[in-house]
Amino acid sequence: MGVARIAVVGGDGIGTEVTAEARKVIDAVLPGVAYNEYDLGARLYNRTGEVLPQSVQDELAGHDAILLGAIGDPSVPPGVLERGLLLKLRFDFDQYVNLRPSKLWPGTASPLAGVKPGEIDLVVVREGTEGLYVGAGGVLHKNTPAEIATEESLNTRHGVERVIRDAFARAQRRDRRHVTLVHKTNVLTHAGNLWSRAFAAAASEHPDVTTEYQHVDAASMFLVTNPQRYDVVVTDNLFGDILTDIAAAVTGGIGMAASGSVNPERIYPSTFEPVHGSAPDIAGKGIADPAAAILSAALLLEHLGKLDEARRVTEAVAAEVASRAPGAPLRTAEVGDRVAAAV
Amino acid sequence: MGVARIAVVGGDGIGTEVTAEARKVIDAVLPGVAYNEYDLGARLYNRTGEVLPQSVQDELAGHDAILLGAIGDPSVPPGVLERGLLLKLRFDFDQYVNLRPSKLWPGTASPLAGVKPGEIDLVVVREGTEGLYVGAGGVLHKNTPAEIATEESLNTRHGVERVIRDAFARAQRRDRRHVTLVHKTNVLTHAGNLWSRAFAAAASEHPDVTTEYQHVDAASMFLVTNPQRYDVVVTDNLFGDILTDIAAAVTGGIGMAASGSVNPERIYPSTFEPVHGSAPDIAGKGIADPAAAILSAALLLEHLGKLDEARRVTEAVAAEVASRAPGAPLRTAEVGDRVAAAV
Ligand SMILES: CC(C)[C@H](C(=O)O)[C@@H](O)C(=O)O
Ligand SMILES: CC(C)[C@H](C(=O)O)[C@@H](O)C(=O)O
Repeated sequence: MGVARIAVVGGDGIGTEVTAEARKVIDAVLPGVAYNEYDLGARLYNRTGEVLPQSVQDELAGHDAILLGAIGDPSVPPGVLERGLLLKLRFDFDQYVNLRPSKLWPGTASPLAGVKPGEIDLVVVREGTEGLYVGAGGVLHKNTPAEIATEESLNTRHGVERVIRDAFARAQRRDRRHVTLVHKTNVLTHAGNLWSRAFAAAASEHPDVTTEYQHVDAASMFLVTNPQRYDVVVTDNLFGDILTDIAAAVTGGIGMAASGSVNPERIYPSTFEPVHGSAPDIAGKGIADPAAAILSAALLLEHLGKLDEARRVTEAVAAEVASRAPGAPLRTAEVGDRVAAAV
Repeated sequence: MGVARIAVVGGDGIGTEVTAEARKVIDAVLPGVAYNEYDLGARLYNRTGEVLPQSVQDELAGHDAILLGAIGDPSVPPGVLERGLLLKLRFDFDQYVNLRPSKLWPGTASPLAGVKPGEIDLVVVREGTEGLYVGAGGVLHKNTPAEIATEESLNTRHGVERVIRDAFARAQRRDRRHVTLVHKTNVLTHAGNLWSRAFAAAASEHPDVTTEYQHVDAASMFLVTNPQRYDVVVTDNLFGDILTDIAAAVTGGIGMAASGSVNPERIYPSTFEPVHGSAPDIAGKGIADPAAAILSAALLLEHLGKLDEARRVTEAVAAEVASRAPGAPLRTAEVGDRVAAAV
């Protein structure tokens, strides 16, 4: 059986290279994990036209977690793999907490002047199963002057409440215990009102957590001018997509950005993956930085309740990154070896 | 008659202070403008419960342009004035081009390390009359566990085509002649497809303009890590709201951010206003920076075809800002006097 069953979906480009290192580190810190590798992504799609065969999805469902590298290749029309694999897993496996920590690590330079490592330490709790991502919409009178296209954002109390509760619970485990709700309540009045009421209710149930509301445009600005102010940010699916990329940018780009698409109840497996893409230009050269993939493995360990192991992996990655000589060439496997040796 | 009829809506807080300076500068560069002042905003709302009486709206319609200061006050529920005045004018006056230039001016510090004045010079052409701003949506089973709230984004070929064409026309008048379409076509497939097709059609009609597409999350990141790459950005209403605040942030905050909600055909008046708010905390002290309001007046002059006057105002503001001693106290009226004397 092993201590945990992990499905590994290396995917395209550098994806397989970085998940190999993440696996190496998991094995070093938690021996006995059972892995199954699944070959999904551009190769499968180009060979069969399928993105996620039902039989594979059924097998994935039997795992404790999914470690994903990256998907996407110029040979596949944009959106096909993202929707058919990443979004499908988020929806079908009810991964409603999309978790994206952003930290300015020692050894990483922020593009922001005067911001020092340690000063930025926030986590965005992005809703993962609702909003504009549900695929509700359509087109009428296509290719005529009368054409109209719609997209609908669906928000349920069920969906909004559970992700907000998760954000408050996370805040309670952090030093600053602060949650910022980000929405656009002055324009999206219907969904905004639901989010605001659910947020106020959760706030009154968590008197030890301080709270704040910001419009998404203001938050996008403050993430650049004053990212230090954020602790936990909770927001909807699309706003979270945008805010997490800004947060990644101010903490030195997506090189260190890890993410988890989490089903907190562990009824379904959660997916953990670096935010970066498949980087076809450097694939196969052994020079991709596996830091974000290894940090994603740390989120995976945390999700499985292996808190001490998760902390050791995170600290080892931080130390490895801090020890890098500026401008020195990086070898994917050597980074994995050093982190594995350190945990 | 005068050379132009301008409605002035100073609004709340520092709004009236900064529009007074903008008026001063317009008078200096273009004598003979006829003004009508309208007292809209929190005072009117608190007195009468009305935001924009129909009779006032009819009068506004008779002007060549509207110079707006800022609206919003803690005494008014959030959203009421924004929707009842700003958004109502955008929709009723068909202000479909929401114009937001961002420039890193000499004397202004970017929060980005190593970015120098002159390096960032972009304009976001944000659609102003469609998308998620149309107010289509609702709520079912409010305050029950079964509650659902929806928001709908409506996009017409008419609306998408005309704003994209406007962006290409603006790009043709700029040095780099580059247009970036920002959307989220991999998730918002219906609206994204309409925007993509309209963009491709416009691109083929403008072979002298180079083009590029980016997802909104990627663009939000690149606006932080490499804002120099953008020239003209065209995007939908909500994405534009977010991107322009990021662009303002990387060019030193909203202190210099001007905007125009433009009806290019001049069938209806266009509104010009600083992006900043009413700043109740510093209102009435004569210390608000009128730079963004005066730059908005320059956009107004440009819209009225007064290109030389617009250029002189913009250059005078730039020179005034560059001449400021760091940390020296600022007097609203003195800034206006200096710029008016220089034009
Ligand atoms: C690939 C895309 C569908 C996805 C998203 O929009 O959620 C990605 O940007 C992300 O943030 O995980
Ligand atoms: C006040 C608000 C409705 C408005 C918007 O969202 O468009 C503002 O943020 C803006 O950008 O002009």
